Amino acid sequence: MNMTTPIEKREFKIVGKSVKRDDVLEKVTGEAQYTGDVKLPGMLYGKMKRAAVAHARIKSIDVSKALAYPGVKAVLTHENVPRVLHYGSPHPRSASCTKDQYILDDRVRFWGEGVAAVAAISEEIADEALDLIEVEYEPLPAVFDPDEAVKPGAPILHEVGPGGNLVLDPVRVNRGDVEAGFAEADFVLEGVFSGGRPHPAYMEPNICIADWDGSNKLTVWISTQTSFMVRGILAEVLGLPLTKVRVLVDHMGGGFGAKQDCFQHEFLCALLAKETRRPVKMEFTRHETFVAGRARHPCKVWLKQGFRNDGTIVARDMKLVYDSGAYGSHGPGVTTVGTNAATSLYRCENVRIEGRCVYTNTPITGAFRGYGVVQSYYALDIQMDEAAERLGLDPAEVKLKNAVRQGDIAPSGHAIVGHGLETCIKHGIDAIGWKKLRERDRTPDPKRPHIRKGWGVGCEMHGSSAYPGIKEQGNATVKVNEDGTVTLLTGAAGLGTGAHTALAQIVAEELGVRFEDVGVIHGDTDVVPWDIGAFASHTTYLVGSAAKIAAGKAREAVLERAAMKLQVQVGEIDASEGRVFVIAEPGRFISVAEAIGPSKGIPAANIVGNGTYEPTKSYSFAAHFTEVDVDTETGIVEVKRVIPVHDVGRVIHPIAAQGQIEGGIQQGIGHTLTEDYVIDKKTGRSLNAGLVDYKMPLSMDMPDIETIILEAAPDPGGPWGAKGVGEDPIIAIGPSIANAIHDAIGVRFHHYPITPEDILKALREKDA
Amino acid sequence: MNMTTPIEKREFKIVGKSVKRDDVLEKVTGEAQYTGDVKLPGMLYGKMKRAAVAHARIKSIDVSKALAYPGVKAVLTHENVPRVLHYGSPHPRSASCTKDQYILDDRVRFWGEGVAAVAAISEEIADEALDLIEVEYEPLPAVFDPDEAVKPGAPILHEVGPGGNLVLDPVRVNRGDVEAGFAEADFVLEGVFSGGRPHPAYMEPNICIADWDGSNKLTVWISTQTSFMVRGILAEVLGLPLTKVRVLVDHMGGGFGAKQDCFQHEFLCALLAKETRRPVKMEFTRHETFVAGRARHPCKVWLKQGFRNDGTIVARDMKLVYDSGAYGSHGPGVTTVGTNAATSLYRCENVRIEGRCVYTNTPITGAFRGYGVVQSYYALDIQMDEAAERLGLDPAEVKLKNAVRQGDIAPSGHAIVGHGLETCIKHGIDAIGWKKLRERDRTPDPKRPHIRKGWGVGCEMHGSSAYPGIKEQGNATVKVNEDGTVTLLTGAAGLGTGAHTALAQIVAEELGVRFEDVGVIHGDTDVVPWDIGAFASHTTYLVGSAAKIAAGKAREAVLERAAMKLQVQVGEIDASEGRVFVIAEPGRFISVAEAIGPSKGIPAANIVGNGTYEPTKSYSFAAHFTEVDVDTETGIVEVKRVIPVHDVGRVIHPIAAQGQIEGGIQQGIGHTLTEDYVIDKKTGRSLNAGLVDYKMPLSMDMPDIETIILEAAPDPGGPWGAKGVGEDPIIAIGPSIANAIHDAIGVRFHHYPITPEDILKALREKDA
Repeated sequence: MNMTTPIEKREFKIVGKSVKRDDVLEKVTGEAQYTGDVKLPGMLYGKMKRAAVAHARIKSIDVSKALAYPGVKAVLTHENVPRVLHYGSPHPRSASCTKDQYILDDRVRFWGEGVAAVAAISEEIADEALDLIEVEYEPLPAVFDPDEAVKPGAPILHEVGPGGNLVLDPVRVNRGDVEAGFAEADFVLEGVFSGGRPHPAYMEPNICIADWDGSNKLTVWISTQTSFMVRGILAEVLGLPLTKVRVLVDHMGGGFGAKQDCFQHEFLCALLAKETRRPVKMEFTRHETFVAGRARHPCKVWLKQGFRNDGTIVARDMKLVYDSGAYGSHGPGVTTVGTNAATSLYRCENVRIEGRCVYTNTPITGAFRGYGVVQSYYALDIQMDEAAERLGLDPAEVKLKNAVRQGDIAPSGHAIVGHGLETCIKHGIDAIGWKKLRERDRTPDPKRPHIRKGWGVGCEMHGSSAYPGIKEQGNATVKVNEDGTVTLLTGAAGLGTGAHTALAQIVAEELGVRFEDVGVIHGDTDVVPWDIGAFASHTTYLVGSAAKIAAGKAREAVLERAAMKLQVQVGEIDASEGRVFVIAEPGRFISVAEAIGPSKGIPAANIVGNGTYEPTKSYSFAAHFTEVDVDTETGIVEVKRVIPVHDVGRVIHPIAAQGQIEGGIQQGIGHTLTEDYVIDKKTGRSLNAGLVDYKMPLSMDMPDIETIILEAAPDPGGPWGAKGVGEDPIIAIGPSIANAIHDAIGVRFHHYPITPEDILKALREKDA
Repeated sequence: MNMTTPIEKREFKIVGKSVKRDDVLEKVTGEAQYTGDVKLPGMLYGKMKRAAVAHARIKSIDVSKALAYPGVKAVLTHENVPRVLHYGSPHPRSASCTKDQYILDDRVRFWGEGVAAVAAISEEIADEALDLIEVEYEPLPAVFDPDEAVKPGAPILHEVGPGGNLVLDPVRVNRGDVEAGFAEADFVLEGVFSGGRPHPAYMEPNICIADWDGSNKLTVWISTQTSFMVRGILAEVLGLPLTKVRVLVDHMGGGFGAKQDCFQHEFLCALLAKETRRPVKMEFTRHETFVAGRARHPCKVWLKQGFRNDGTIVARDMKLVYDSGAYGSHGPGVTTVGTNAATSLYRCENVRIEGRCVYTNTPITGAFRGYGVVQSYYALDIQMDEAAERLGLDPAEVKLKNAVRQGDIAPSGHAIVGHGLETCIKHGIDAIGWKKLRERDRTPDPKRPHIRKGWGVGCEMHGSSAYPGIKEQGNATVKVNEDGTVTLLTGAAGLGTGAHTALAQIVAEELGVRFEDVGVIHGDTDVVPWDIGAFASHTTYLVGSAAKIAAGKAREAVLERAAMKLQVQVGEIDASEGRVFVIAEPGRFISVAEAIGPSKGIPAANIVGNGTYEPTKSYSFAAHFTEVDVDTETGIVEVKRVIPVHDVGRVIHPIAAQGQIEGGIQQGIGHTLTEDYVIDKKTGRSLNAGLVDYKMPLSMDMPDIETIILEAAPDPGGPWGAKGVGEDPIIAIGPSIANAIHDAIGVRFHHYPITPEDILKALREKDA
């Protein structure tokens, strides 16, 4: 484990406080600049023509009418764009991506795939021109179900890869002796679980603006989580050195993992700008965020586990099939992470798990908060609940008994260091009065006899960092300005989560200045140190550690300088809130500005601290305790109350952490009860690509949430022990709801979303 | 002397070659972005109302009509801007500036000073609104001549400073025993010399755009040589931390020193933007570049020197008076540098020099290429010519005999290290066949009997860096990208001279990559390391050294990494043109990209090298040999041919160095013969503030220039010995022309510009 520092017992000035985010004012007033706010002189608007077939060869494209349309400046098709096979997913250095995409191909693999792009002087003209492009297709047989797709004779989508519509070779994890384990079991549970296709539905649609300057340098304004990856792939595909591609990201309206790909329109935007020598903006409609964005992988999980009568798991046999849609994107990463995750959470010495990822003629699925783990832990946690039911035991106790602990092998293959799951479960049991709830009077309220109340508990763990799939690296540069204020340069994207605030807190705390003295510069690949991107719950953990290292170096330089001026030894002084003071004599101090300023022939100091951090992995843990009301007349499930108990090692900004947790719960409620992006099984057509038909929970739909954040298991790899909290909350909420529904109406569901129709149907079957 | 490296004898791959500048294409096509090309949504246009009186109190300003004018968004006067006394000149850390300006004052000190500012939806409306502002003045007595200004009873311009209209206490340098020196002299020469008010007349007028974002951060796009100084002064005057001021400079259309001030309109632009919450652009008209820009200090020099009959100087007594105009600006720096410079060039052990700088009610003079030295060396070199004439000796030989040399005390007070002046003079004498020219037949060409031909030699030396006046510091950051290309981050401004090209060459050479692999990021104070600004001929010397240090560190990291991969010791390998190879086996190599990329569990390296360099000073030298034709009928002097011989220690980019020299000569010809910004001595009104009446030499007026660049005296402080060349060429050309005129017509002129009227008058007087 690469440690930034041993876990200190210390009093914090800034860390752990909910300081006011620097971007609050501009966000409230609407002045915050998002990519869509960028307006460049002479800017054109780009639009894509999308296929209305799921699988076909393009026989011909006639763009002559579109090109002749007044106001149209350029049209691109597969015939006039570079034909380079590229990674849609942005980490060419890792195994978690697949090189299977062209900018535009002479073949369509899903309904909604782009086949041409237009740049015009207005969005309206560009839209009108799309209709003038005539495409003649030669239809190909299509396949929409992963089980069908892997059968012999199924239509094959790609020449690359292992074949048979597999995105990658099956991921297999074997440990112990599964057969021997089952032989020891007192009983065996087996079930098939399945997850739908929820979509991140971020507020800000995908958008980019491309402009080439007079020295043939490409500048791209874009909403992305991975600006350096975008830079790398654009450079590779367009044949440019990295010095000639600049990627700029300012504020972002969410990403949730899905904005880690290089999208078709982003290449086309750059090429349209090159063709026209004018800036070109391309912004997705809401419809396009569905058809051309990235949803969560639909997944089928077959899970068989052997249990002892005391609730211990003795064998786990599991098969997962993830539906990648028409291209690989993050399929390899998601499959690897989700499959490996299933080895853990609940301890088991004998595991045999296989994960597959399969191409189908459906829209591309990709990275999304929870990254394959939502699917596997949904199965694992529900089956644990079933085991408790079978044994007549308290599911919370059974989960506690089986909870992963210190020294167990983590999904990463390493021994767990910070194990906070037991503490989370125990803490939740106490906080909510779980035992009493279990023993409560279950007679329905006579005034609302159709309402059944239920309580469930769901658990999860999730890694901060993508290790071992990706060798990560966090970088930060800290400059001390002449007036003692500090500039942090970071490549970490700000998805809206307050990441930059947390980083500024870390820098201020470590360097000894006030929070408001730290300015954060980000989102410009030309100037910030290289960054891997904002994903895998790792920004605070990874970049936070790098920022702490960088600030520590700057602090050393400031103290050296101050010691000289105060005429004391470095060991005798300390810095806090912008002052450097003599520890034994706190009234004797100079400001940081004075410390670094010139005096008596010594020029002003140029203080720059660089920090690089290469972590392995830490794990965060959570248990969600959830109350639901199930309406047996309408089938509607209302989540009433959630007590999420999270171990994050060290909380940097409590309100921001709480916000992450609440947001994850909101998304998780949607995924479990209402959200599913539906693809017609006959045509591959999107049936609800829009926020009218795709039902997300709104603020009015939110339950009471009483967040409990624990610093139970600080990780020596994170800043002062901090671990991630980005992905965790979306994982535990799902099974906690499913388990609560069972508690309410005695019916087990093995899928999500659990719709009112499902509830009513199940109740009818149960009654019958 | 702070040495970056001992002077190496080595073969250069990139340094010393005239590589193609990266900005050539965009400049030729007109696509290069200057500040004026920045267009922001909702941008307003600012204009300033300027006083038409030279000295007055403002009794009242009525802006009501202007404010009511449709399209006007804000009007600022001294009544509603912060009243903070500030440095107009941008280096508060040094002695070379004076805190004597307000953004807007209730008093006017020169004709053309700003008294109000308007922001409107168009430049035209803003201009019209200016006329609606009614200002009532209470006139004050004004003074336009420095000699008058220091007399008792003269109108006093400022309360600050030493009083009596002195900008600073007189600068005095005394060495040896001047009286004893004169007592030893065989003869004494005494003369009064004077210089006019040439203006830099840069192509790109002063311009800035200010915008405040939603977090109250001020961004300023500006044409400035000193972006960090602008940031510092704006922050101080507007009461902002440095993290809330961002200064951006892209391409610049010249500066020549004059764009080192914070100008009235720059503060007002920021304040108008704050008031209106919209971006505001303010661009000078050509007229304003004269009245509100910065010209060279008019100067009177009294010079008395004692000589031995062998031509040796035994005593130098000198008084200089620089006219600062209405504010101090760079007056202190110019006076200090110009006065100290006069101690050297031609050696003398007994010197007594006094420099004064005086306020007058005229437009502000400031920094301008040659920075006070043009004035003092004009006198020094011409009087040396006179001494040779008196002795009947060759002036080149007398100058050679007296040329400063190794170990002499430099103007900085330190011993000279690299002394190239003798070599320059000797080289020029040989190259031009000077001896023969001296002995030529002087009979006029019978076909053009009114033309008299003359040859003159002028000498100069000039420091790279502003040491000891300012403790300088150069900084550079070098990042190696994943593809092996390299990004240099530098705060050095690019005035158009190719500074970034030279820096990229230095980085490429030191790091071992190709020139085209280096991208330069500059001009954004948020992201580049702190920089003192581009002035004092120091960019290649100072920032070049820092860049070399930074690149050297990056190189070390690359080699370490490569050694690991090539399985050899670091000492066994070298890097060149993007490859790291085994020295003994050059066929065995890997690319820089491969060297730093990930492999076998080792993540990709994040290679960042930082370089900081704090120099003392180096000196460059030159001798200009100049041929003129004097038309005795029209009085017109035509410069026919110049052989400038420059010692720059080490030339980085020969064509760029040559361009500097040619440009300096062009400017110097203008200053010596045609350029003078004339202020009416009765009213203080500008008489020729525009390029129609202010006559600069154009390309058609240029002589043949045969530049000779020597690497005679490399300086251990510069990269591979390089020294500056920015200011030098403007200094020697002036006296070489004056001396050539004397050679042609036998008349001595002690002033510049030497106009046709002066020539004709002098010929008449000579004949009489």
